[in-house]
Amino acid sequence: MTLKSFIEIDPDSDFSIQNLPYGVFSTKANPSPRIGSRIGDFVVDLAVLDDEKIFDKQYGFFNEPTLNKFMSARRGVWKETRKALTNLLSSDSSPLKNARVELSRNDALQSRVFIPVEEIQMHLPVAIGDYTDFYASREHATNVGIMFRGKENALMPNWLHLPIGYHGRASSVILSGEDIIRPRGQVLLPNESSPQFLASRSLDFELEMAFFIGTGNHLGQPISIENAHEHIFGMVLLNDWSARDIQAWEYQPLGPFLSKNFATSISPWVVTMDALEPFRVAGPRQDPAPLPYLQIVSDYGYDIRLEVTLQSNSMNEPHVISRSNMKYLYWNIAQQLTHHTVTGCNMRTGDMCGTGTISGPTEDSYGSMLELTWRGEKPITLPNGEMRKFLQDGDTVTLKGYCQGDGYRVGFGEVSGKILESRK
Amino acid sequence: MTLKSFIEIDPDSDFSIQNLPYGVFSTKANPSPRIGSRIGDFVVDLAVLDDEKIFDKQYGFFNEPTLNKFMSARRGVWKETRKALTNLLSSDSSPLKNARVELSRNDALQSRVFIPVEEIQMHLPVAIGDYTDFYASREHATNVGIMFRGKENALMPNWLHLPIGYHGRASSVILSGEDIIRPRGQVLLPNESSPQFLASRSLDFELEMAFFIGTGNHLGQPISIENAHEHIFGMVLLNDWSARDIQAWEYQPLGPFLSKNFATSISPWVVTMDALEPFRVAGPRQDPAPLPYLQIVSDYGYDIRLEVTLQSNSMNEPHVISRSNMKYLYWNIAQQLTHHTVTGCNMRTGDMCGTGTISGPTEDSYGSMLELTWRGEKPITLPNGEMRKFLQDGDTVTLKGYCQGDGYRVGFGEVSGKILESRK
Repeated sequence: MTLKSFIEIDPDSDFSIQNLPYGVFSTKANPSPRIGSRIGDFVVDLAVLDDEKIFDKQYGFFNEPTLNKFMSARRGVWKETRKALTNLLSSDSSPLKNARVELSRNDALQSRVFIPVEEIQMHLPVAIGDYTDFYASREHATNVGIMFRGKENALMPNWLHLPIGYHGRASSVILSGEDIIRPRGQVLLPNESSPQFLASRSLDFELEMAFFIGTGNHLGQPISIENAHEHIFGMVLLNDWSARDIQAWEYQPLGPFLSKNFATSISPWVVTMDALEPFRVAGPRQDPAPLPYLQIVSDYGYDIRLEVTLQSNSMNEPHVISRSNMKYLYWNIAQQLTHHTVTGCNMRTGDMCGTGTISGPTEDSYGSMLELTWRGEKPITLPNGEMRKFLQDGDTVTLKGYCQGDGYRVGFGEVSGKILESRK
Repeated sequence: MTLKSFIEIDPDSDFSIQNLPYGVFSTKANPSPRIGSRIGDFVVDLAVLDDEKIFDKQYGFFNEPTLNKFMSARRGVWKETRKALTNLLSSDSSPLKNARVELSRNDALQSRVFIPVEEIQMHLPVAIGDYTDFYASREHATNVGIMFRGKENALMPNWLHLPIGYHGRASSVILSGEDIIRPRGQVLLPNESSPQFLASRSLDFELEMAFFIGTGNHLGQPISIENAHEHIFGMVLLNDWSARDIQAWEYQPLGPFLSKNFATSISPWVVTMDALEPFRVAGPRQDPAPLPYLQIVSDYGYDIRLEVTLQSNSMNEPHVISRSNMKYLYWNIAQQLTHHTVTGCNMRTGDMCGTGTISGPTEDSYGSMLELTWRGEKPITLPNGEMRKFLQDGDTVTLKGYCQGDGYRVGFGEVSGKILESRK
């Protein structure tokens, strides 16, 4: 029997009682950022619940401006708080099941705990120490490889042996809803021998997800693949904005730099790995077999349906330009984390790892304009007749994602950003 | 006339009164980390000076476990504190020049303020948000280019147009003196088609310097080259430990990752840009001329003499294996910082930027084993007859650096690390 809440939730809502993500919010009445969960169209003020001693014990990490203290509290505590919150919000909540309060019958408390989403302001959920971005979709790596190196050399020789990753920029990770100023930088135009300083002409999005480190490891002590799940707290949607012309000129030999670090947007609600657990599926078969340190017995793919929409300034509603799925990822997040630490690198609470662009096998499932328009060769036609090779000023790109349960969803909401004209 | 302190300082000491670097230290008597300066063989407890109101005003940022609060206080304040400290420590310090106290004649206070270096423990001076590593030495980039791509294609087409850089890992930045565990990771051995999981066989150092961001910039608002100096607080020595075999296999197409992030060592004393000011020199001529946003009128090279020593377990003293100089850097630190922000990337207080390996023009001035032994083709012979292609377990690598003034030095001390056997 499917668990239900005493709060009415649309079956298409991302925020069922099976989800219960965590985020940081504030209100006009109380502008100090604190931790909440989300159910249906309400934010649940966990700081109030904790301060009022509604849980069986006081946790002391919800009246905080980031999730970091909570995330550092180890997996057993994450499970315990999730269980307590589920009990509190479920429709068969009763004094027997919850000795302290029957929230569904306490109107005064309800009005302080449940805040309509229209009344809240979200904040960056996590203080991110280091941000790493992987390149774990075989389809994406193959597409990009074909475009830049030809079909024969599409995948580099190392790609099937390890999850390629590189360090990103943590300071410029921003929250969904913040605008993106078109970057200006060095670009080498076709048939030129010297670069020019220009506003990027090939601004792109990248459809990604990201996971957050809950508890870290010590320098020199790698995380084994069997223990990876102990360290991963939850996930968000991530848009790795990319300036392709700046990237093409700068990236050799040390990788992308300024073409990526002007902004990386994430969704505000961190969906826990426990909420995603029912949606684990087998990932793609890995051939050649990875080295033993990357071998994992259990299924570690996630069936998360992903969607990208684009809305220009003159459009009335967003238009879907891609549908993909997290399950297509070749290298799973346990492999990513284990590989990241294998030479001894230490992860800290709040570190974020992006999956890399998640492209599917078909042309309508690609995770970037670069791939969808095949480097501009096949422009996208929008419903109002506008054409797009890359993103134009005024375009809003929105990524969404959810897992479909039986009559409910576990979703991520969205990460959205609008392109503004470059500075003069 | 050269400024002198009432404290006796060896003319070969890195820590003259012209230097006055900042660091974080603790003592057995007071184990709480706090900010100090260094003069000769003494650490100056700035927290005591501030708490006792010895300066003309109380700063309130010295009794802190990192320099960040101080660094965020803007350049005017950095200059003011340096001047106050110089006045206090100079030999012509008098009640006229310093109304509150004549430190040189106050024995009771002196014993609390001046702590012999043997009695102190140094700590990481800065909470580093993001760490970026540049690749700004033409000699280094050329040497590596020749080895990996041949003489014709040694420098990538972009190299002379922009300071190549990439994001590094902040979590694994460690202090001088901490041991380095030889990393294990994926390596493709010669004539093999599949990688193996091995302890690195080509562990290397990289002779670098690094600068710290004092005050940052907002996302989307680049720092102009004219204003770069307002944002740079000071410098340290940096050893960018590198596992060359792991690097060779992993680095395409997104750059070095696990081959670098197992450890990056820095020296404990942050030498301010004000102390380095007298040692500014012209850098190499830049041809082709950089784009206007990277053009700078003033000399922005620094005459900092650099030295690398190696000592194996069976040697009684360190042996100099390279001598280089910061002035050889092709892209100066103002250009590095400006370029870093040109697409809009925000820098935050405490961010660290490495210069990249600083190799000089001659074979005995190269900044890595890779170059000194030309990828192992010309092993180094140590005084006791031992040979080295790359670093062996038990080897200690030490980087030193100083500016030579007229009868005094402004130096960095050292950054040192010993290689330990890999974990099984």
